[in-house]
Amino acid sequence: KARELVSPLHPADIADLLELAPSDRRADIAAALGDLVGAEVLSELNDYVRDDLIGALAPEQVAEFASELDTDDAVAIIEDLEEADQQAVLEAMEPEDRAAIESALAYPEESAGRLMQRDLVAVPEHMTVGQVIDYLRDSGDLTRDFWEIFVVDEGHRPIGTCQLSWILTCPRGVPMSDLMKREQTLIPVDMDQEEVALRFQKYALISAAVVDGSGRLVGMITVDDIVHIISQEAGEDILRLSGAGEGDINEPVLDSYRARVRWLLTNLLTALVASTIIGIFEGTIQQMVALATLMPIVAGVGGNAGSQTMAVTVRALATNQITGSNARRTILREIRVAVLNGVTVAIVLGIGVSLVFQNMALGGVIAAAMVTNIITAGLAGASVPLAFDRMNLDPAVASSIFVTMITDSMGFFAFLGLATAAGLTS
Amino acid sequence: KARELVSPLHPADIADLLELAPSDRRADIAAALGDLVGAEVLSELNDYVRDDLIGALAPEQVAEFASELDTDDAVAIIEDLEEADQQAVLEAMEPEDRAAIESALAYPEESAGRLMQRDLVAVPEHMTVGQVIDYLRDSGDLTRDFWEIFVVDEGHRPIGTCQLSWILTCPRGVPMSDLMKREQTLIPVDMDQEEVALRFQKYALISAAVVDGSGRLVGMITVDDIVHIISQEAGEDILRLSGAGEGDINEPVLDSYRARVRWLLTNLLTALVASTIIGIFEGTIQQMVALATLMPIVAGVGGNAGSQTMAVTVRALATNQITGSNARRTILREIRVAVLNGVTVAIVLGIGVSLVFQNMALGGVIAAAMVTNIITAGLAGASVPLAFDRMNLDPAVASSIFVTMITDSMGFFAFLGLATAAGLTS
Ligand SMILES: [Mg+2]
Ligand SMILES: [Mg+2]
Ligand SMILES: [Mg+2]
Ligand SMILES: [Mg+2]
Ligand SMILES: [Mg+2]
Ligand SMILES: [Mg+2]
Ligand SMILES: [Mg+2]
Ligand SMILES: [Mg+2]
Ligand SMILES: [Mg+2]
Ligand SMILES: [Mg+2]
Ligand SMILES: [Mg+2]
Ligand SMILES: [Mg+2]
Ligand SMILES: [Mg+2]
Repeated sequence: KARELVSPLHPADIADLLELAPSDRRADIAAALGDLVGAEVLSELNDYVRDDLIGALAPEQVAEFASELDTDDAVAIIEDLEEADQQAVLEAMEPEDRAAIESALAYPEESAGRLMQRDLVAVPEHMTVGQVIDYLRDSGDLTRDFWEIFVVDEGHRPIGTCQLSWILTCPRGVPMSDLMKREQTLIPVDMDQEEVALRFQKYALISAAVVDGSGRLVGMITVDDIVHIISQEAGEDILRLSGAGEGDINEPVLDSYRARVRWLLTNLLTALVASTIIGIFEGTIQQMVALATLMPIVAGVGGNAGSQTMAVTVRALATNQITGSNARRTILREIRVAVLNGVTVAIVLGIGVSLVFQNMALGGVIAAAMVTNIITAGLAGASVPLAFDRMNLDPAVASSIFVTMITDSMGFFAFLGLATAAGLTS
Repeated sequence: KARELVSPLHPADIADLLELAPSDRRADIAAALGDLVGAEVLSELNDYVRDDLIGALAPEQVAEFASELDTDDAVAIIEDLEEADQQAVLEAMEPEDRAAIESALAYPEESAGRLMQRDLVAVPEHMTVGQVIDYLRDSGDLTRDFWEIFVVDEGHRPIGTCQLSWILTCPRGVPMSDLMKREQTLIPVDMDQEEVALRFQKYALISAAVVDGSGRLVGMITVDDIVHIISQEAGEDILRLSGAGEGDINEPVLDSYRARVRWLLTNLLTALVASTIIGIFEGTIQQMVALATLMPIVAGVGGNAGSQTMAVTVRALATNQITGSNARRTILREIRVAVLNGVTVAIVLGIGVSLVFQNMALGGVIAAAMVTNIITAGLAGASVPLAFDRMNLDPAVASSIFVTMITDSMGFFAFLGLATAAGLTS
């Protein structure tokens, strides 16, 4: 019954069904679906859900699934297994498949070498369109899914790329050397997936040749495997800015706890800095308790202004929009926006506080503190991520704790410091 | 000289060069590069930078550029122009190109109708592989860039899709009806681009047929135009959570100011709520000023815990990982993580405060307040975005102001309220 409903579905939809099921029921559902949960479904599954299900399979079974897939998809399944399980699965595979996967696993995680498939079509440049078509029709063991043909020299180095549509719209006699596009984007095998994804986006690539250190064609990356990375890389910054770790709703609770509590404890430390600053001004607060009531406003709105600038800067860095030449300009731009924001918010807040507390001096102090903190927030929100990026640290991971510490501290310091200097008492 | 350096570059690289130049020098550089800044470069440019450069061109010039591009790219250039400029450009175009663009502009912004191109290859199912190849070779005015062929019935409704690689690896005699894949993902012409992007990702599509209300094939969307949308849609949530508007570093300063100050002023209002709560406990703070020193810690760490849960939930919603069936489970999961986080942070903070202030009661109060606020943060961070999503509001836009208000207020209320109840005095 369940089988009948599920069997017309796309593997990606079956994977979604399993992901939506409660985690303690997934194994039963997978068992009930039997061979409908095959290699394709496994490769579509969320990493955590897949780990759960694979745990219940024999290594031979996993090996069989992996053999049915392209190298890149097989690697994605096997790379997350524990060392011992990985070995067991590899030993159960045919030598040829095993060698392909082991050589992929030899490349660093999240590198082009892990993303590429070995099945591709490469032809010498002297072949004509007609010869290529005959070759494709004759060789039965070729991959069925490719979008471009790579033209290589005698050393198997790519010298051009040819879209299949160009081949199909050309007479048989045209040589590949006339048809191919010589400007191509070659991907070094050790390039990070984030950089690979940016190339695909920038040059609107459908597939790209992967080359080793000596320039030899060793694999092909196709855009359908890149769209996941683009989405993942663009989406992870939002999680990193708040220290939410992987941020996957399928992650085991204890793993999420470990990732997040580390961040909250760090946040506790930085909050102590702000707290210490307030401590310096206890005498002033004693004189006028209203200051304690108002000080979180200066810190909070400043923090929000800092997040805005930080989000813009982190995003611009992630999309390669900032380089050495426009970094200073970007900071200046953010300061300009901050000055406008600061003045506006300060005027509204200053007038409001003056009226509510019937105290012009208090209004003036909070307005001055607010404008100071928003401008500080703009400066910190732009320059902290840029500084981390220049140090080759991920600006999304490290920035927010610093920026928050700066806007909190400056918020309390400017407000309470000015209040002290102005000699405010209630 | 400049021309020599630039001429071997890809249009996307020339576009990047223009983007990196200071905004007041771009027009000069573009003029110096002359015809190297053509239609392709324009279509690669950042929206704001393009608007700047197009402002300097005559409508006839823009019309000529637009005519060189596929409909989708031409629309992208024209749709952002002011009404009057748009009319002038359209009037300068050939009737045929103009009609194609006008019909695309008739679809809503960010819909499939704006993204699709009209140039595609569609054949009837009775054709054989050989006939298709001959047809492709003969018809010279076809688009050169396509990756799949659509098979249509007499009513021009798509009934199957065929990858070019399948055609090239098959004997001439095979009929298209045997070769094509009947399960296809059809995109309704009014579907939102975000949904289109999710389909491309989920089903690993390279191109897809776009159909009108009656199921007729009206266009084709290719994945190279989707990668930008995936990146944009995944990246915009980080900007929306902080109210950073478009968050483009090329946006005019005044536009950024307008978008962000609105958000900061709203934040000012919600900060008043937290401020009012502190006001209620002025008497207690008067008794023990140390409370004012410590209260931002409870609010701040709670706020960070709320951001973590909110980021996870917003991301899961954006990737369609949460539906009705697992929403409750997701909230429960977040509460579990929050309990663990809350207890850990509370123990560390409670012991620390007890020791530093030599006051067990104060340590107990801050620990109890901290655990309360982190659990509240987990509940709010998960349920607020889910509630907005259910109301068809963008969870990224509306959530953070509410969640911050809740964690700030609860932080101050729990800490100062418990301190009052415990009768703390210094
Ligand atoms: Mg899925
Ligand atoms: Mg993985
Ligand atoms: Mg693949
Ligand atoms: Mg794949
Ligand atoms: Mg990454
Ligand atoms: Mg990143
Ligand atoms: Mg660009
Ligand atoms: Mg646009
Ligand atoms: Mg949308
Ligand atoms: Mg296009
Ligand atoms: Mg394009
Ligand atoms: Mg959107
Ligand atoms: Mg969205």
